[in-house]
Amino acid sequence: MAEEIESLERLLEDHLPADKLAEARRIIYGQDGKNSGPLDLPEAARALAKEGNFELVGYSISAKPEQLRPPRIVRIGLVQNQIVLPTSAPVKDQVAALHNRIGEIVEAAGQCGVNVICFQEAWTMPFAFCTREKVPWCEFAESAEDGPTTKYCQELAKRHNMVVLSPILERDSIHSDILWNTTVVISNSGAVMGKSRKNHIPRIGDFNESTYYMEGNTGHRVFETQFGRIGINICYGRHHPLNWFMYGLNGAEIVFNPSATVGALSEPMWPLEARTAAIANTYFTAAINRVGTETFENEFTSGDGKKAHKDFGAFYGSSYVAAPDGSRTRGLSRTRDGLLVAEVDLNLVRQIRDRWSFQMTGRYDMYAKELAEAVSGNFKPNIVKE
Amino acid sequence: MAEEIESLERLLEDHLPADKLAEARRIIYGQDGKNSGPLDLPEAARALAKEGNFELVGYSISAKPEQLRPPRIVRIGLVQNQIVLPTSAPVKDQVAALHNRIGEIVEAAGQCGVNVICFQEAWTMPFAFCTREKVPWCEFAESAEDGPTTKYCQELAKRHNMVVLSPILERDSIHSDILWNTTVVISNSGAVMGKSRKNHIPRIGDFNESTYYMEGNTGHRVFETQFGRIGINICYGRHHPLNWFMYGLNGAEIVFNPSATVGALSEPMWPLEARTAAIANTYFTAAINRVGTETFENEFTSGDGKKAHKDFGAFYGSSYVAAPDGSRTRGLSRTRDGLLVAEVDLNLVRQIRDRWSFQMTGRYDMYAKELAEAVSGNFKPNIVKE
Repeated sequence: MAEEIESLERLLEDHLPADKLAEARRIIYGQDGKNSGPLDLPEAARALAKEGNFELVGYSISAKPEQLRPPRIVRIGLVQNQIVLPTSAPVKDQVAALHNRIGEIVEAAGQCGVNVICFQEAWTMPFAFCTREKVPWCEFAESAEDGPTTKYCQELAKRHNMVVLSPILERDSIHSDILWNTTVVISNSGAVMGKSRKNHIPRIGDFNESTYYMEGNTGHRVFETQFGRIGINICYGRHHPLNWFMYGLNGAEIVFNPSATVGALSEPMWPLEARTAAIANTYFTAAINRVGTETFENEFTSGDGKKAHKDFGAFYGSSYVAAPDGSRTRGLSRTRDGLLVAEVDLNLVRQIRDRWSFQMTGRYDMYAKELAEAVSGNFKPNIVKE
Repeated sequence: MAEEIESLERLLEDHLPADKLAEARRIIYGQDGKNSGPLDLPEAARALAKEGNFELVGYSISAKPEQLRPPRIVRIGLVQNQIVLPTSAPVKDQVAALHNRIGEIVEAAGQCGVNVICFQEAWTMPFAFCTREKVPWCEFAESAEDGPTTKYCQELAKRHNMVVLSPILERDSIHSDILWNTTVVISNSGAVMGKSRKNHIPRIGDFNESTYYMEGNTGHRVFETQFGRIGINICYGRHHPLNWFMYGLNGAEIVFNPSATVGALSEPMWPLEARTAAIANTYFTAAINRVGTETFENEFTSGDGKKAHKDFGAFYGSSYVAAPDGSRTRGLSRTRDGLLVAEVDLNLVRQIRDRWSFQMTGRYDMYAKELAEAVSGNFKPNIVKE
């Protein structure tokens, strides 16, 4: 593999002449320089980012003024980060170090006026499911309702008047102590609004997650917060267009996709899926991925015929926000901890629905009928032969 | 707008150093240089392209050898082209000139061993629906079963032993002379296998197509040809993930997307949608767009408050083939007539299904239930409030 590049955006900036860069940005990112562009962030936040050694990127996507509705400006924060301590450190120490690190970054988000923040998938732990070992990883699981991480996030939410989306490994002690991959939704009031579980679970390569938890049972609920209606499509669910679709039918205006995914597996798909979902469902999407390489004490294999190893490669970060008009923000880097602050006007959702009419022309009744037939036991594919 | 660039690929090639170019190609196009790369095409075909002034691009995407199945290598041909005569020329002359032009390009495709070829949407006419005039545009409509264009394509199919997908404006004289936007599927034997109509019709800007034809009634049939199972998702249907999805459920291995779309409207979406569909549905997709600017005799308006005008901008070409593994071919140019020959191994479809398991993990029964509820008259969105 070639030398790691920091980001595709930086690569293009370093090499393309200015007029060609603008045209490349338009074709690749849908950035027209009129409705979208860099967002100024306060000096204090930039100082925190420098001191804390994390990238801080601001980007704005606007909507047109309307006669009857004022703009609905929301600042979305995405956090990507490496784990802090070695994976062999005591569980409690690893969690505390991550709480502390995220606290630093959220402090900067608060300075930036972020209204809704989302952390990466299973943010309180290494992404250890590649090992297929149960110990100690199951010990990272916590109650969604009143575990230490939820309590910590409630404090952050209140302190910064910020909705916090906290993706954790959940232990459901009400139901036989089973585990789930869950995002806890905490209102800016500090109250736990509820939780949303990962609907689609991978069984591929190093992502042996169904060893730990099964397909979620919380459907496609949408959380009506003070800063817009929010859905959460966790990680592998981004490969499933029906999953994105159903959050849209339930009224989501922003769908977050907290993830953990590595280069060789999925990097070319990363810029495509959340962004296509934003276009097709006419809402904002926010894709978040880890950074760094996580090394484990015991070696493991990856079901690919290769020798046992202790890490499964670098998470490539590149977190971004995509808009319903086909544009997207700049991405965070492929390698560093970072906070992306995206200012968006939620009015863009309905404006683009009125313009493109994907929902009006969607013929959902036809698909409901066809899909019902397709899942029946005696489905006959509609195949024409000569 | 900046000066027209020929293609994004060419722009990157002209400006990035070699190692960075490889990495950019991996991230943007999923091209790893092992499973995918340029395809050698015969000198005779290259001579025809030079003489006929059209671009000729060959690209190959391979699959792994299997123990029980031989490779299923198919060469897919995509044609993008400008109209030949002015839009004010007699209908018959315009059609004849386009037949002739396509005949030249198909001759080169035959030399290249193309097995399945697809032309652009409504290929026998200018994309005149922006005018909202009925005359003379309705005169371009033909019988799908035995119109002159179908007969012409039957000759091409037999001569080159090639499946021909011919997207036309169809007149259905069996059903009260109404019009449809239809792709006729002609077997390499020369027989008409059937037709597939456009399922989703735009009503936006210059695409006032529902003035001429309504949403198709042929569902999501898939054509089992000697060279694989083929579906056709016409133009605006690429914005509808359920449309792509249903062709997949019916067994499609390649879904063609003959289109006609212009820069300001959709160019940033163009590289996303057909490719995301290839990934999500684990099949090949082939996206085809026109090139050139078409000028009309009478001025028309575009529903955007701007002055009346006689053209609606340049079709940006950029036709490409996307693979289920997330990779794609090089694209044709944004400006010139062209033929893309993509050699693919259809075995990749099942290989990637086995690997990623998107279908196995798709939970279609859940979505059938949720979608049935969503289309019912008393649907209550699943919204959680504080």
